[in-house]
Amino acid sequence: MMGVPRVFGCVEAGGTKFVVAIGNDRGEILAHERFPTADPASTLAATNAFLRQRSQALGTLAAIGVGSFGPVELDKTSAQYGVIGKTPKPGWRGTDIAGTFAREFSCPVGFDTDVNAAALAEHRWGAARDVNTLVYLTIGTGIGGGVLVDGVPIHGLMHPEVGHIYPRRHPLDLAFAGVCPFHGDCLEGVAAGPAIVARTGASLERLDESHPQWEIEADYLGQLCAQLVMTVSPQRIVMGGGVMSQERLLPLIRPRLSHWLGGYIDRSECLDGGDHYVVAPELGDRAGVLGALVLAMDAAASAGKC
Amino acid sequence: MMGVPRVFGCVEAGGTKFVVAIGNDRGEILAHERFPTADPASTLAATNAFLRQRSQALGTLAAIGVGSFGPVELDKTSAQYGVIGKTPKPGWRGTDIAGTFAREFSCPVGFDTDVNAAALAEHRWGAARDVNTLVYLTIGTGIGGGVLVDGVPIHGLMHPEVGHIYPRRHPLDLAFAGVCPFHGDCLEGVAAGPAIVARTGASLERLDESHPQWEIEADYLGQLCAQLVMTVSPQRIVMGGGVMSQERLLPLIRPRLSHWLGGYIDRSECLDGGDHYVVAPELGDRAGVLGALVLAMDAAASAGKC
Repeated sequence: MMGVPRVFGCVEAGGTKFVVAIGNDRGEILAHERFPTADPASTLAATNAFLRQRSQALGTLAAIGVGSFGPVELDKTSAQYGVIGKTPKPGWRGTDIAGTFAREFSCPVGFDTDVNAAALAEHRWGAARDVNTLVYLTIGTGIGGGVLVDGVPIHGLMHPEVGHIYPRRHPLDLAFAGVCPFHGDCLEGVAAGPAIVARTGASLERLDESHPQWEIEADYLGQLCAQLVMTVSPQRIVMGGGVMSQERLLPLIRPRLSHWLGGYIDRSECLDGGDHYVVAPELGDRAGVLGALVLAMDAAASAGKC
Repeated sequence: MMGVPRVFGCVEAGGTKFVVAIGNDRGEILAHERFPTADPASTLAATNAFLRQRSQALGTLAAIGVGSFGPVELDKTSAQYGVIGKTPKPGWRGTDIAGTFAREFSCPVGFDTDVNAAALAEHRWGAARDVNTLVYLTIGTGIGGGVLVDGVPIHGLMHPEVGHIYPRRHPLDLAFAGVCPFHGDCLEGVAAGPAIVARTGASLERLDESHPQWEIEADYLGQLCAQLVMTVSPQRIVMGGGVMSQERLLPLIRPRLSHWLGGYIDRSECLDGGDHYVVAPELGDRAGVLGALVLAMDAAASAGKC
């Protein structure tokens, strides 16, 4: 086997798309492919075929990492470990996503949520390299967050679901009922992409800079950041996802965070102008698949193969 | 020195009272004393005198643990480590509380917030012995929380300040402005002991069971628990403090937690009737000083003296 490089299988299992890749332990992606998330059987079959074919051409598959949409069971002692929970995604509830790869490939499988994976990648190679306690947020078709404490994702009861906290309603937004099927006007229900469309008839990038939606959105996301400062005390908050791709949004959020902290948290890092506290991702849309690579590398290391 | 038992100094440095004790590594308190928190110089002098005199009679002082009111700096690399921050407590801002003990005694000093200390004690010997990720809440003259992830207190930017999240206002409570000097109607501003008195003119135990204050209080505290489930995902929430000493309050909180989760977090542990999820402390008012004992024991272990 000498001279055959060790490679890692990377699976970003998203609710709308799967990104699969082969990477190495220098954080390089050697091959990748993406396809829409269809039914579980065909989606996982396509993933397995990619991993098998492309890894053979590139080296020896040392481990596989999977960052999955959720909710998922992360407790390794549970019979439901690696299984998709109460998702509205048709057909996926009860799918044993981690087990599929463990059965198909005789190598360790690292498994976590998609947002925990992205947080791990931004911590290893991206915008949170220099801190150990951080939150990675994605603001897109939903709102989710991965939380690392001392470099390790919080699991606990299951995993944080920061998109479902309840913000105070913005005074200009009191008539909007919100679109979360569980909570109505939780944060995801008033601030994710579909909420913006439901409220205004358009996505954020199509709205004029003077449209109040910008202020409403920044306020809700500033409240999310403030609640995270109060509960998790992160050293940095990295904000990605489709809604955040509007670059003028981030500078509007920072003063709203400062407003909601109310002068109590006396740290220049998170006050107005604290440009290094609430930041954009550095890995862009590669955070998810690079996070799967971190999970694979960690799984290989835990199995004593590094 | 053979035969001289190792003992630990324990300091619960509260905003209203100090509890000082000598303990051993079996979790036993061998001597203790409490006095009101006065100015820093006289309070710390009394603490030092107790620790010196009583430890000499009982054994060799192996380490001191301090659980302090806050905010405090917990970053060991900071010049402000162990120093009290922006407190309204007269004279205490800028007091180097950890440094005082390190200078007076030639032994390791463990230092954390009072609520992190209480969380450590409930985890080691109390109501959260069987889990590793948990929140200890105190609902009293203020509202604070210690958060342990994998058994270790979250520090991060500083430490969580869960009392200062913003709950949705209860429909029966919209006229009340709240009493937090920083935020007005944050959780502490509407649900701590002084808020109850400001709203109703009486403390909770003096209000009839049919008084709406019970429902309002339970709703706000249920929201706190729900926000913690969404952000920290604890395996247990332990609720102590003066307001919680009203035993009929806890069973009113659990269904409000369930209400705010909205069926999304699909775990029987935290749903209605989940009596093992939101629980009373087992150590009562000894949690703080026993937490200081845990901090002392851990400091001794880190220093390689165990």
